[in-house]
Amino acid sequence: MSEITFDDPQIQQTYRAIGEKSPFVYGLTNYIAANLSANVLLAAGAGPAIGAGADWPAVFPAGAAGVWINTAAVMSNPAEVLRTVAAVASEAGTPWVLDPVAHGAGAAEYDGVVKSLVELRPAVIRGNASELISLAGGATTGKGVETTAGSDDAVEHIERLARQSGAVVAVSGATDYITDGTRTVAVPGGDARLTKVTGAGCSLGALTAGAAAVIDDAFLAAVTAHAAYARAAELAAAQVGPTGGSGSFAVALVDGLYALAN
Amino acid sequence: MSEITFDDPQIQQTYRAIGEKSPFVYGLTNYIAANLSANVLLAAGAGPAIGAGADWPAVFPAGAAGVWINTAAVMSNPAEVLRTVAAVASEAGTPWVLDPVAHGAGAAEYDGVVKSLVELRPAVIRGNASELISLAGGATTGKGVETTAGSDDAVEHIERLARQSGAVVAVSGATDYITDGTRTVAVPGGDARLTKVTGAGCSLGALTAGAAAVIDDAFLAAVTAHAAYARAAELAAAQVGPTGGSGSFAVALVDGLYALAN
Amino acid sequence: MSEITFDDPQIQQTYRAIGEKSPFVYGLTNYIAANLSANVLLAAGAGPAIGAGADWPAVFPAGAAGVWINTAAVMSNPAEVLRTVAAVASEAGTPWVLDPVAHGAGAAEYDGVVKSLVELRPAVIRGNASELISLAGGATTGKGVETTAGSDDAVEHIERLARQSGAVVAVSGATDYITDGTRTVAVPGGDARLTKVTGAGCSLGALTAGAAAVIDDAFLAAVTAHAAYARAAELAAAQVGPTGGSGSFAVALVDGLYALAN
Repeated sequence: MSEITFDDPQIQQTYRAIGEKSPFVYGLTNYIAANLSANVLLAAGAGPAIGAGADWPAVFPAGAAGVWINTAAVMSNPAEVLRTVAAVASEAGTPWVLDPVAHGAGAAEYDGVVKSLVELRPAVIRGNASELISLAGGATTGKGVETTAGSDDAVEHIERLARQSGAVVAVSGATDYITDGTRTVAVPGGDARLTKVTGAGCSLGALTAGAAAVIDDAFLAAVTAHAAYARAAELAAAQVGPTGGSGSFAVALVDGLYALAN
Repeated sequence: MSEITFDDPQIQQTYRAIGEKSPFVYGLTNYIAANLSANVLLAAGAGPAIGAGADWPAVFPAGAAGVWINTAAVMSNPAEVLRTVAAVASEAGTPWVLDPVAHGAGAAEYDGVVKSLVELRPAVIRGNASELISLAGGATTGKGVETTAGSDDAVEHIERLARQSGAVVAVSGATDYITDGTRTVAVPGGDARLTKVTGAGCSLGALTAGAAAVIDDAFLAAVTAHAAYARAAELAAAQVGPTGGSGSFAVALVDGLYALAN
Repeated sequence: MSEITFDDPQIQQTYRAIGEKSPFVYGLTNYIAANLSANVLLAAGAGPAIGAGADWPAVFPAGAAGVWINTAAVMSNPAEVLRTVAAVASEAGTPWVLDPVAHGAGAAEYDGVVKSLVELRPAVIRGNASELISLAGGATTGKGVETTAGSDDAVEHIERLARQSGAVVAVSGATDYITDGTRTVAVPGGDARLTKVTGAGCSLGALTAGAAAVIDDAFLAAVTAHAAYARAAELAAAQVGPTGGSGSFAVALVDGLYALAN
């Protein structure tokens, strides 16, 4: 399997296109991750708006260049609002990213909401190993929003999910993997402290929508977002040092994404 | 047009009165900006509470010394709750600040909610150029929550809006302008990275309510909040340097407001 | 009254057990404090999930090792959802922490929601002096979410509340006090800037649930969380210096909790 990092010129070019085009990117997400998700998109150069304010769900997905839906948004919105955003985006041809946070952690009704969104043609599905293995029909192993499986164990599952759904699928972990069902690439790197920052995964979903907003290639967009995130985490690790705390690391992660864009 | 900065002794005195009086300031805002808005008010010395917990909207605006309503709060609350908070504040004589985030971005129902709040006698209306031009009856040019117009272009519009509404109106941008419809002042300074920090504008609305809570002069309160914010952004820029990232800048902005108060 | 700090080996051992066992801790809280609460638990080594996504309230409290409910969660959830989480936790034997934020600030309906939760057998109740004096039947003195009383004034009240409710009760202040109604200990230290960081108290409630998740002794769990928080605040104060701002202090607080766990 080939490896791709932010050293790849095409990846750098795609990431910098976010800052050059400054696309409007609209998202529904949970309130734990909303602030970091918006700051990640702003650091990369996009113009994010989040949330279902009155008729925003009916209007903004059509006007936006990219959309993301983190399914934990159901803690603030009826499931029907999530489906409206997905349907309006699909109808308008706006690429949208599905982040099935906590799928497979034992909440059957919630898992049903996630599955209903897969039907609405996301361009990309991203999550951790437990979530994606479960969504692909494998075992359910999640513990709340945390994974209990490694990303290596998820590769065959995400390839199956990609073929089933027609979406590009990306799994985060020690190494990230991105597949369209026929080709799969590995994105190495990053830093273990990403798992100590709440919403770091959710914000990667937002950044994936930011990349999909500027290039008509969902696979390249997903790889770009993951490679930029891994590099930004490495820059953050260098900034705060190996024993730097998770608070400083979170701040430095946003700085890293900003530095890569400027 | 005259320029005012934080060098003005009356501005410094008004800002420091927030810390001396430690007023209770109550707000409804969106969950993306809520954390930063509260931290901005705490740094300045106020005691903020945010959100519509049970009967808070009926009780807290009367007990508070200042109130702010960011209309994106409709993502968590029925529009009627926003109107209740505005009405209770007006009835009790508590000055309240309206922040019409994303007005004019194409969501007609949402824009109607904003307009209904203008009727409830805000002491101050603050926003970016696109929002305020649209609210004053000019063109609708917003892209989600971002402006596509400069603050210079908004001056005549905010002067008209001030005369129409009876409120002091303040527009944020490279230079901020504040008007009561007859006199208009410019607040220069700040830093471009303010546009890379989610909720930075929303939090300026909160700070404006904090200033209005300690002085019975909405114009001076609005100028104070904007001048303190601009100076805090300059302190932040000095702390993180010209190439410092937007993550560190956001932290340093709060530090700047804290330093000005202590 | 005896004093306990993080120097106590049993306290250190209990705190480090959070990182060793990495328990799933589930919470309902307000959206102002949600991000910091999750980051505090992650820094200590727990795996948090927050919010009422579809059937999470019916499922997650039984699967979790610890639960916390910050009653300002009613700004996003019907009161019945808070009671469901409390009841499912009690039924499953999962220890849960009640944080009665803003009780006694004048909102009678809200105060009634808080009281209904006390009936559902929390293992620990934590808050500031105004909240707990009021909840114990003393005077109502709160100003929004801020206290107007000192923690020293609350001691007799929290001892009474502990005997009434059967819960361990902890009050935060210049010195923290923790009691089970018969024995009371003081946890000194910390830093005044904790009161300048929004959600710092709420996040201490989350950390208390994290400690209760790894040891079957609610009193020791509450003392551990408070002693670790006080020490982390001292580490943060040392990191940012005596004049360091509240923005940097908030980041350093999370770093401090991370350092104590690693």
